[in-house]
Amino acid sequence: MAADKKLVESITSRDVDFAQWYTDVVKKAELTGYTSVKGCMVFKPAGYAIWENIRAELDRRFKETGVENVYLPMFIPESLLQKEKDHVEGFAPEVAWVTQGGLTPLQEKMCVRPTSETLFCDLYQKDVQSYRDLPKLYNQWCSVVRWEKTTRPFLRSREFLWQEGHTAHATAEEAEARTEQMLHIYADFLEDFLAIPVVRGRKTDKEKFAGAEATYTIEAMMHDGKALQSGTSHNFGDGFAKAFGIQFTDKDNTLKYVHQTSWGMTTRLIGAIIMVHGDDSGLVLPPKVAPTQCVVIPIRQKDEAVMEASQKLLDTLRAAGIRTKLDDSDRSPGWKFADQEMRGFPMRIEIGPKDLARGVCVLVRRDTREKLEVAIEDVVAESAKLLETIQKDMFERARAFREAHTYAAEDYLTFRNLADEKPGFIKAYWCGDAACEETIKADTTCTSRCMPFGEQDEIEGRRCVCCGKPAKALVYWGKAY
Amino acid sequence: MAADKKLVESITSRDVDFAQWYTDVVKKAELTGYTSVKGCMVFKPAGYAIWENIRAELDRRFKETGVENVYLPMFIPESLLQKEKDHVEGFAPEVAWVTQGGLTPLQEKMCVRPTSETLFCDLYQKDVQSYRDLPKLYNQWCSVVRWEKTTRPFLRSREFLWQEGHTAHATAEEAEARTEQMLHIYADFLEDFLAIPVVRGRKTDKEKFAGAEATYTIEAMMHDGKALQSGTSHNFGDGFAKAFGIQFTDKDNTLKYVHQTSWGMTTRLIGAIIMVHGDDSGLVLPPKVAPTQCVVIPIRQKDEAVMEASQKLLDTLRAAGIRTKLDDSDRSPGWKFADQEMRGFPMRIEIGPKDLARGVCVLVRRDTREKLEVAIEDVVAESAKLLETIQKDMFERARAFREAHTYAAEDYLTFRNLADEKPGFIKAYWCGDAACEETIKADTTCTSRCMPFGEQDEIEGRRCVCCGKPAKALVYWGKAY
Repeated sequence: MAADKKLVESITSRDVDFAQWYTDVVKKAELTGYTSVKGCMVFKPAGYAIWENIRAELDRRFKETGVENVYLPMFIPESLLQKEKDHVEGFAPEVAWVTQGGLTPLQEKMCVRPTSETLFCDLYQKDVQSYRDLPKLYNQWCSVVRWEKTTRPFLRSREFLWQEGHTAHATAEEAEARTEQMLHIYADFLEDFLAIPVVRGRKTDKEKFAGAEATYTIEAMMHDGKALQSGTSHNFGDGFAKAFGIQFTDKDNTLKYVHQTSWGMTTRLIGAIIMVHGDDSGLVLPPKVAPTQCVVIPIRQKDEAVMEASQKLLDTLRAAGIRTKLDDSDRSPGWKFADQEMRGFPMRIEIGPKDLARGVCVLVRRDTREKLEVAIEDVVAESAKLLETIQKDMFERARAFREAHTYAAEDYLTFRNLADEKPGFIKAYWCGDAACEETIKADTTCTSRCMPFGEQDEIEGRRCVCCGKPAKALVYWGKAY
Repeated sequence: MAADKKLVESITSRDVDFAQWYTDVVKKAELTGYTSVKGCMVFKPAGYAIWENIRAELDRRFKETGVENVYLPMFIPESLLQKEKDHVEGFAPEVAWVTQGGLTPLQEKMCVRPTSETLFCDLYQKDVQSYRDLPKLYNQWCSVVRWEKTTRPFLRSREFLWQEGHTAHATAEEAEARTEQMLHIYADFLEDFLAIPVVRGRKTDKEKFAGAEATYTIEAMMHDGKALQSGTSHNFGDGFAKAFGIQFTDKDNTLKYVHQTSWGMTTRLIGAIIMVHGDDSGLVLPPKVAPTQCVVIPIRQKDEAVMEASQKLLDTLRAAGIRTKLDDSDRSPGWKFADQEMRGFPMRIEIGPKDLARGVCVLVRRDTREKLEVAIEDVVAESAKLLETIQKDMFERARAFREAHTYAAEDYLTFRNLADEKPGFIKAYWCGDAACEETIKADTTCTSRCMPFGEQDEIEGRRCVCCGKPAKALVYWGKAY
């Protein structure tokens, strides 16, 4: 048992040092690896498989709404990046520049895409002539580069993986509808598939995307009470279209500018899964996204009957579509339990000679460690039911946690005390002035996370928590990753 | 009919100008688009969807053999690229260099990966300590950059998409077995899934990969008789391991170097599909890889019963897993036929009022244009059968074409005449000397494509087609893309 305990104890406790706990889990669950490339990360099989599951499910949901996948170049010539003023100001300070191709210097330097609005505009400018060519509903899965100074696996890395959707529409209404539609697809995906509750809302002007008219966001609360922006959807209006000259002949035979959107989600989501669901024994993966949902652990491997039954459990569960592994390594059962917990597999099945004699096995939940004895013949149905229950319970637990850590502040002293003492979200009214956002950030390090949808009705008579002027919006504030 | 004819006639004939035909097809089937990024291409939805199908099927076949996916950084620091001598000499002249990150020059320049051997070695050096850590069977799907001077869509582009597998093994035998295993996976995939017959063999030293001990290849013949190298698998022996210091403690408690392999396939495959199967009406896609396998074309759209029946056909075929579209646009049937042919959808279903009255519809094969009248109630079974037949026939036709264009030369005059007059492969014996390869290339522009497996038995007494010395191998020679 000494070795088993050592494995578990080697993770820092969440409550002692959350950042160190995160680093430990990422490493010990073998999600990432290190290379000599500064600021960049390696996605190891356990980490990349999570991304593959995220990608497959999101991609399916996108395609159901008519989105098509494309792939555009990874390079952006400097002149193209500069076409839209706000956009270049937002990104130029953090891009990587290619200045030499082969043995010769380039005539025009190119950056590695930090995002691809400019490339999609360049394509649409060539491809869109008539209303018949609209809408364009393109998406791409790729990696992007932003030259960050301080980096953390999944959360902030010089290169990360993401999807970026870019659409062009004939009308402003259609663009707005698509912007909101994609935000809700993101939100539903996090809640259904990753068991992460989110706040859906709009960003303030200060926090919106460089070049956007409006940015919508989903914000999730991590176990340390901090916010993680988990997906954004932008309405560009016709700003990019004017900068890039993207015009079409409409049905009424007049020339009009298109209206555009973009929306993206990244490998940050893996960081969110870790920080929302993980515990002091390691990773806890929601069943729907878990590459391995169940591991069968034989209790007495020398016993041939036990090994046979274990193999049969593996085959039966796999045939039923439950992603299952058999751990028949030469480690002790205790070591294997700790290993399964570290890697976050949602459930394990223990089976030993005594169980076998009685025709039963034991299902153990990763999230609560609860044990459930079931007849071997019922194992598929019981496992499927258990995985569903785990998924649902994980979501409910995360929601309860968020609600318990969401506070309201009507005056600035309360706000500052909450920011000091209570990790979590603070709901407070705001006048709409960026100066108050600056003040709040300087005083508390809190930023405006979003103006939540559906909570803006009781604004009449409210006052800004910072300056006291009449309020324009209810805002969720929080410290953010 | 004038407009329909125009659409078809706008493709150059294959026999008039094969290169122009290729360019026309790529453009008119909307596989690619243009951007302002010189030498790079845009994968439009129809082109990218082919890649998605290739990726899904290959990925499944890889994983069946225990391969796991990972993702490594896109940048390689100069010092890392330089660690293996042959490798850096092979790639340094054609890489893109990043010299600036954000607003400051980099201390060490980095190239955008042209291939990732050095990064995988860097990772394995850190991750492999014991025989228990072996084998490592990693693969990644990503884009790579090689600074080509002349480019063509899919065939040669500064950035392209591919997969690169990188494995590390405890023994030389295991590495060799994996190298060959992956080559056969590639070959089977091309033959089964893309209906492209290939020659499997080994590259000569002159043509092998920079840093490899042995390179295996599959070579396919295009419709113009030229060869396209369609996938390669390399055995590195312990060369990289020694350069990067990748050692492990074996079961006998001694320190040993690992043996490594790498293997890759790229979006060139889309070029191969086009050039093997396409005809003067456009693209012809093998059913297994076709994103759209069948299009339903109603003959009289004003007829409600016809439209209802068309919609029902669409729903029925989709429910049966046949990837089907309905073309209910406001174009004429003739235009739609030409459009379906251009885009290479393997079959169409025509249904008009007269057919409907008799309870039938007409299936039309893209590859042969053969028509088949079937009862509407049998449409799923008949379509599935037809798609299978098309897949099989396309492969057989391509194989017959290759065989008809494969020649043997026992003397140099015959060789040169064949090279001048007969597009295709030339089988001829070779002494093993790179000087003869140089001579042949200078005289004929033919290069050694491979030394085919299974055809090296009758070498006794044979002489080199170029210099007349005793032969060491039978070689396939050809002009290549």
